[in-house]
Amino acid sequence: MAILLFSDFGASDLYVGQVETVIDRYAPGVRVINLLSEAPTFNVRASAHLLAAMASQVPRGHVFMTVVDPGVGTQRPGLVVRVDGRSYIGPDNGLLSVLWARGTMKTAWHITSHPPGVSVSFHGRDIFAPMAASVVTGEFPNENVKSIPAPGELLSGDDLAEIIYIDHYGNAFTGIRGTNADESRELLIRRMRFPHARVFGDAPRGKGFWYVNSLGLVEVAMPADSAAKMLGLRVGQGVQWVA
Amino acid sequence: MAILLFSDFGASDLYVGQVETVIDRYAPGVRVINLLSEAPTFNVRASAHLLAAMASQVPRGHVFMTVVDPGVGTQRPGLVVRVDGRSYIGPDNGLLSVLWARGTMKTAWHITSHPPGVSVSFHGRDIFAPMAASVVTGEFPNENVKSIPAPGELLSGDDLAEIIYIDHYGNAFTGIRGTNADESRELLIRRMRFPHARVFGDAPRGKGFWYVNSLGLVEVAMPADSAAKMLGLRVGQGVQWVA
Amino acid sequence: MAILLFSDFGASDLYVGQVETVIDRYAPGVRVINLLSEAPTFNVRASAHLLAAMASQVPRGHVFMTVVDPGVGTQRPGLVVRVDGRSYIGPDNGLLSVLWARGTMKTAWHITSHPPGVSVSFHGRDIFAPMAASVVTGEFPNENVKSIPAPGELLSGDDLAEIIYIDHYGNAFTGIRGTNADESRELLIRRMRFPHARVFGDAPRGKGFWYVNSLGLVEVAMPADSAAKMLGLRVGQGVQWVA
Repeated sequence: MAILLFSDFGASDLYVGQVETVIDRYAPGVRVINLLSEAPTFNVRASAHLLAAMASQVPRGHVFMTVVDPGVGTQRPGLVVRVDGRSYIGPDNGLLSVLWARGTMKTAWHITSHPPGVSVSFHGRDIFAPMAASVVTGEFPNENVKSIPAPGELLSGDDLAEIIYIDHYGNAFTGIRGTNADESRELLIRRMRFPHARVFGDAPRGKGFWYVNSLGLVEVAMPADSAAKMLGLRVGQGVQWVA
Repeated sequence: MAILLFSDFGASDLYVGQVETVIDRYAPGVRVINLLSEAPTFNVRASAHLLAAMASQVPRGHVFMTVVDPGVGTQRPGLVVRVDGRSYIGPDNGLLSVLWARGTMKTAWHITSHPPGVSVSFHGRDIFAPMAASVVTGEFPNENVKSIPAPGELLSGDDLAEIIYIDHYGNAFTGIRGTNADESRELLIRRMRFPHARVFGDAPRGKGFWYVNSLGLVEVAMPADSAAKMLGLRVGQGVQWVA
Repeated sequence: MAILLFSDFGASDLYVGQVETVIDRYAPGVRVINLLSEAPTFNVRASAHLLAAMASQVPRGHVFMTVVDPGVGTQRPGLVVRVDGRSYIGPDNGLLSVLWARGTMKTAWHITSHPPGVSVSFHGRDIFAPMAASVVTGEFPNENVKSIPAPGELLSGDDLAEIIYIDHYGNAFTGIRGTNADESRELLIRRMRFPHARVFGDAPRGKGFWYVNSLGLVEVAMPADSAAKMLGLRVGQGVQWVA
């Protein structure tokens, strides 16, 4: 079992290393994998959909520490959920609620106490990392949590018909799962229409197309070019199917 | 015990991986944590203050490999210091001298010889990484160092009333420790005044404020926005307290 | 033995972590080192030269997983090569052919089958990572490969007289090995001439110079400044020696 980090801590910044140092202290020898540290900042809903897609592809048993938390320092409690064999620790702000809504076997806890000396601005390091370590080492459930019926902040588990992530190649991920997509239809974004292609090699140069990407999500891409730059795509833009 | 990297090697670049490969060779199985690879390039003083703040929060026993080294390839020697239970390897250019000045139990060595085939431009990989491995595995002190009374290049251990780091959220860290800050005073930067707030949630939208951040440093921030971008803040700008 | 990643997956993106998760599954406990995730995208030739230089400095026994693959999703097969004691897994598109051409003891295989559920766009995660794990754990050669006399796509092993990489300091790496460089000659790029200097400290401020860098490649640099920015250098520009 590994601890997988999903956050907006920044790929160039000093936050991920501090989290790893804390995990090393409480769960020495456990592998820490940084899945993503550039989740859409301040955008809990897009992040929740991206996380749900990534988590579905990871072996059961792994523990996720997840932080996209514009409200850090407010009274919002910390959350632990176990959904279909995987565990997740993060803020109770909706981030874990899309995968919760889609799950079958599931339990939830609020974090009620934590190690002394918690900072007001870095709960990832001071609350969630020690809790992730206690989950991965099997010390959980412990006296620092209380069982709750469900997370307090709940988002829908339905697909999100928006752009939720743009990768460094310029590909635009939507929150629509490929299992819900019909290859005969076109995707409409900003008055542009994109037909389906199975893969980059099948699409004409200089034209955008949609396909089901490696996370199982509908993605808009352009062969050997940045779809985001060429087409002006950004996280949060709405998408819709047209005949 | 882990080896913690603090450098300006670049988060996107090919230097950190090479250092890890060398550590893996000389200290197989030891965890390597990349604390920061975007320390202020060419700015040894700001980096020294940031490192001192980060190091103070890390468990004793850990070994830091630290490189911010505009003078690589000159005659400046390599340095090992042990301060209050933590070890540090890096250039003797002032980078380790702020934490040295603030420490109590401390010893220092110059590195006098090193593995064959040292490059002129990458002492981190060729000198400091093998030395960090020898410290973490307990082979140190060894025949490749000589004891010295103190580092050759010494900076003051006093607070630095400047911006020393800007994170990817746009928060501006100063070199002033929170233990030396008075919440009733305002911070003056570029003729702008910033009052204290305990946390982001307490500050008004669109207004800058100062608070004590998770490294224990006075930081200027803005709720849900980039203080650096909105206020034109940059590393090196002076700050001062006003009534 | 460790698995070393060399790719254009992006330092800020969500691809490297997914690869690590797969390696952790098939080769638990094996160290994964991210050598570079910003190899020149879409530029297989420059990447092949950079990889050859990096690989030559790594201990024998290590396993490289390498992906710069503009043609992912086409019929191009996957490749495993063993060259002078190191193993490499990647696409058969030329990326592994420079180190192949320079090697002495060498064998090659095509990947003929792979785990079920392979995506069309992320062979690094779905084909190369499981294969790298099987190589590092000693399960290779196995029933999923067939021996071939050489890679299908072959580039020359000669030096490449071009800029192949620009680091975050702004230093410009060429594909010319230092062992083939004459210190009495100057390097010509974009009608600018650069003399040799042994190291940054020996070069005059504000002037570009060339030297042999820590990978053994001829590099153009500028003391305490970005040569790339000041001189307009970019990957792909040709360089030549002048008297």
